[in-house]
Amino acid sequence: MKNFNIVIIGGGAAGVAAAISASNSNPGKTVAIVKKEKITLVPCGIPYIINRLDSVEDDIMPDTGLLNLGVKFIHTEVVGRNDKVLQLASGEEVGFEKLIIAVGSIPVKPPIKGIDLEGVFIVNKDIDYLRGLREAAKKAKKVVVIGGGYVGVEFADELLADGKQVSICERFPNLLPMSMDPEFSELLEADLKLRKADLRLGASVSEIEKHGKALKVKFADGAEIETDMVLVSVGARPNVGLAQKMGLKVDEDRGILIDEYMRTSEKDIFAAGDCVVKSCCCTGKIQTIMLASTACAQGRLAGANIYSIKVVRTFSGVLGTFSTKIGKMAFGASGLNERQVKEIGMDYVVGTAEVPDRHPGKFKDTTKLFVKLIYARYSHTLLGGQVKGGDSVGELVNVLAVMIQNRMTDMEVDALQIGTHPLLTSSPVVYPVIKATADAIVKWFK
Amino acid sequence: MKNFNIVIIGGGAAGVAAAISASNSNPGKTVAIVKKEKITLVPCGIPYIINRLDSVEDDIMPDTGLLNLGVKFIHTEVVGRNDKVLQLASGEEVGFEKLIIAVGSIPVKPPIKGIDLEGVFIVNKDIDYLRGLREAAKKAKKVVVIGGGYVGVEFADELLADGKQVSICERFPNLLPMSMDPEFSELLEADLKLRKADLRLGASVSEIEKHGKALKVKFADGAEIETDMVLVSVGARPNVGLAQKMGLKVDEDRGILIDEYMRTSEKDIFAAGDCVVKSCCCTGKIQTIMLASTACAQGRLAGANIYSIKVVRTFSGVLGTFSTKIGKMAFGASGLNERQVKEIGMDYVVGTAEVPDRHPGKFKDTTKLFVKLIYARYSHTLLGGQVKGGDSVGELVNVLAVMIQNRMTDMEVDALQIGTHPLLTSSPVVYPVIKATADAIVKWFK
Repeated sequence: MKNFNIVIIGGGAAGVAAAISASNSNPGKTVAIVKKEKITLVPCGIPYIINRLDSVEDDIMPDTGLLNLGVKFIHTEVVGRNDKVLQLASGEEVGFEKLIIAVGSIPVKPPIKGIDLEGVFIVNKDIDYLRGLREAAKKAKKVVVIGGGYVGVEFADELLADGKQVSICERFPNLLPMSMDPEFSELLEADLKLRKADLRLGASVSEIEKHGKALKVKFADGAEIETDMVLVSVGARPNVGLAQKMGLKVDEDRGILIDEYMRTSEKDIFAAGDCVVKSCCCTGKIQTIMLASTACAQGRLAGANIYSIKVVRTFSGVLGTFSTKIGKMAFGASGLNERQVKEIGMDYVVGTAEVPDRHPGKFKDTTKLFVKLIYARYSHTLLGGQVKGGDSVGELVNVLAVMIQNRMTDMEVDALQIGTHPLLTSSPVVYPVIKATADAIVKWFK
Repeated sequence: MKNFNIVIIGGGAAGVAAAISASNSNPGKTVAIVKKEKITLVPCGIPYIINRLDSVEDDIMPDTGLLNLGVKFIHTEVVGRNDKVLQLASGEEVGFEKLIIAVGSIPVKPPIKGIDLEGVFIVNKDIDYLRGLREAAKKAKKVVVIGGGYVGVEFADELLADGKQVSICERFPNLLPMSMDPEFSELLEADLKLRKADLRLGASVSEIEKHGKALKVKFADGAEIETDMVLVSVGARPNVGLAQKMGLKVDEDRGILIDEYMRTSEKDIFAAGDCVVKSCCCTGKIQTIMLASTACAQGRLAGANIYSIKVVRTFSGVLGTFSTKIGKMAFGASGLNERQVKEIGMDYVVGTAEVPDRHPGKFKDTTKLFVKLIYARYSHTLLGGQVKGGDSVGELVNVLAVMIQNRMTDMEVDALQIGTHPLLTSSPVVYPVIKATADAIVKWFK
């Protein structure tokens, strides 16, 4: 039987981040990752296997960093455990001192009749399945995407870029309904329509039928679309089966129960990433955010703290920070949006700014940045922000994420000193985060 | 005589930011800007009049935002004041209740023989002068740039892009010597050399001679360069003449003396931007940072606080945050660099990371990001950071700026939750700011 000080189950974002941090923070301890797949894909890169990447293989997460740290890989499945010994599908056993469960999530298979038909794909992370998906997409002329969240919209963007006729079906009235407010979603929808995408918003798919080689997607309101391929991406649920089998405390719908330091109900077992229960940093309410970046932050915490708490948290809960690029537009969001703030019943003030992302705005690659910030009405704390613009959105949304995690108030943001450059950012006179903040401040000055 | 509640002298970055903030924060108060120039240029945009912009006119800062706020413009020079009345060059007078001096800086004219020859240009912000400079540059085949700071290097970049033969002369051994550490400057230097720039580092210009139409730049070590044009950008000094005339307390070399809220030695007179004395946020030492972004932050503070302190500072002193793009590489720096930390005698730890700025790294527009962070050895506070990479550097350096201003420690950065996207940022597993932080932490774990 092999023995390791630290064993991590799962080689996705949380598992890899945990392995790096466990190795770095606990010199002299042996670390192993047990994972089913020989090859792990970059999860967020999956939509891009359609067009921007030349093959599924271009989306592989390299193991070199981990191997250089001395992390061992065991390629098999964990089927059970007995105290501090894991039983593997291969029949072998592996002993551990400390265990981190990072087994991720399972794509939701919606209860639609015909969901198992040939030509209907449910996006998952398996390399062979995705090779088949890519091949089918390359052959298809028409594709229906079910689910208008990030993954669905990114697949649609890639399919459009690859010259396909694309329909996007979303049961909510807007795309990206969970993270963005409607004024942002509408910008995205307008752009996709310009690119000839067929948007079916507020539309529930009731059935998929097969007629010869063609598929027919039927909606609750009677509408129908003929298509060559259906791509389903309607979210994921935490993978809790193994944890349940191990006797850990689990909320079946929301994930493995953990504390602030990723500790499960058992002292030497930690868990991180999509498989764990998360609570919102602003409200403490349970959230089902499944983001690689969140998973990595949790993996790092688990890895560093597994023998003793080294990294004391000064910011509690989960802060979801998203970004994406669809066509030439990038979108980003961090923290609460206006809909969520309303639902919670918080008093709030909105500040907005719309400015060029270069200065002067005469530069050829200038894009309009649109920023919306939401501040607590009386506490003045930044609760969330949304951004639309060019590629700078990717890091601009992290500027917001760092502000929120530092519980910055409107006045502190107003007093911030930032850096600007004509070719890289907006003008310092109208830096959009500060301009939107000034807009919020003015509303309660008056 | 005209009277205004708030009069601002100067229409550059600090003046404009002060006018916006004064109008927003003090409803009902009248605001006027007195400035010499009918047209104000975007200061940081000036190098780009050579090539990327089609004319000097493309670099004009629009007045519309201010006019919409009701700000009045008076185009003349202030020559003196009598209590609360300003004497203008036009012979008129303007009365004020509160005054903000934002008269900026004056380019340094180095004591080089021949500096006043025709064909030698000292970069300033005057539109007519810059029209002449642009015309001369368009005609020139060879240009010598004296000064390897941001402005000098940006002009050189533009001249190279426009097909000129360019020499850059810097008396320090590296380009951008004030803000970047040598390993970053060397990347820049290698790129400029590849583009056939002639770098003269550690070289002092002793004289410029005119021979017919040609100029000859002579160095202290006897070297010479023949050229069609010389462009001088060796820094600027605070414009303190008017403040002195007004009887305000002034340090002639460093600027107008102010307190934390931009108040001068006289109760109702504030000052902001390049013309004021600045002290470093980390050390309290006097610094000569002249950045539009710093000027704007000061202008905002002055405007908001002119009648009463509305924006309480929770972060003291000046944090310099720079960025630039030379060729295809972008560079950024915030806070202290290693040289400065050594000079001050601070114990420190350096963490570095080098990662692709997309994930997977197979995307065609992927650039390597190189991040260097400097943490206080025992206090663990982030003191400064430097970045080299693609365009995302512009906002990534602001992520660092916000971290420094929140006095974040390495452990807090390690626990940060950030957002990532394949097309916009590095992978969440190796997000460079966190990876560099982990590298710093590992150094004292071991």
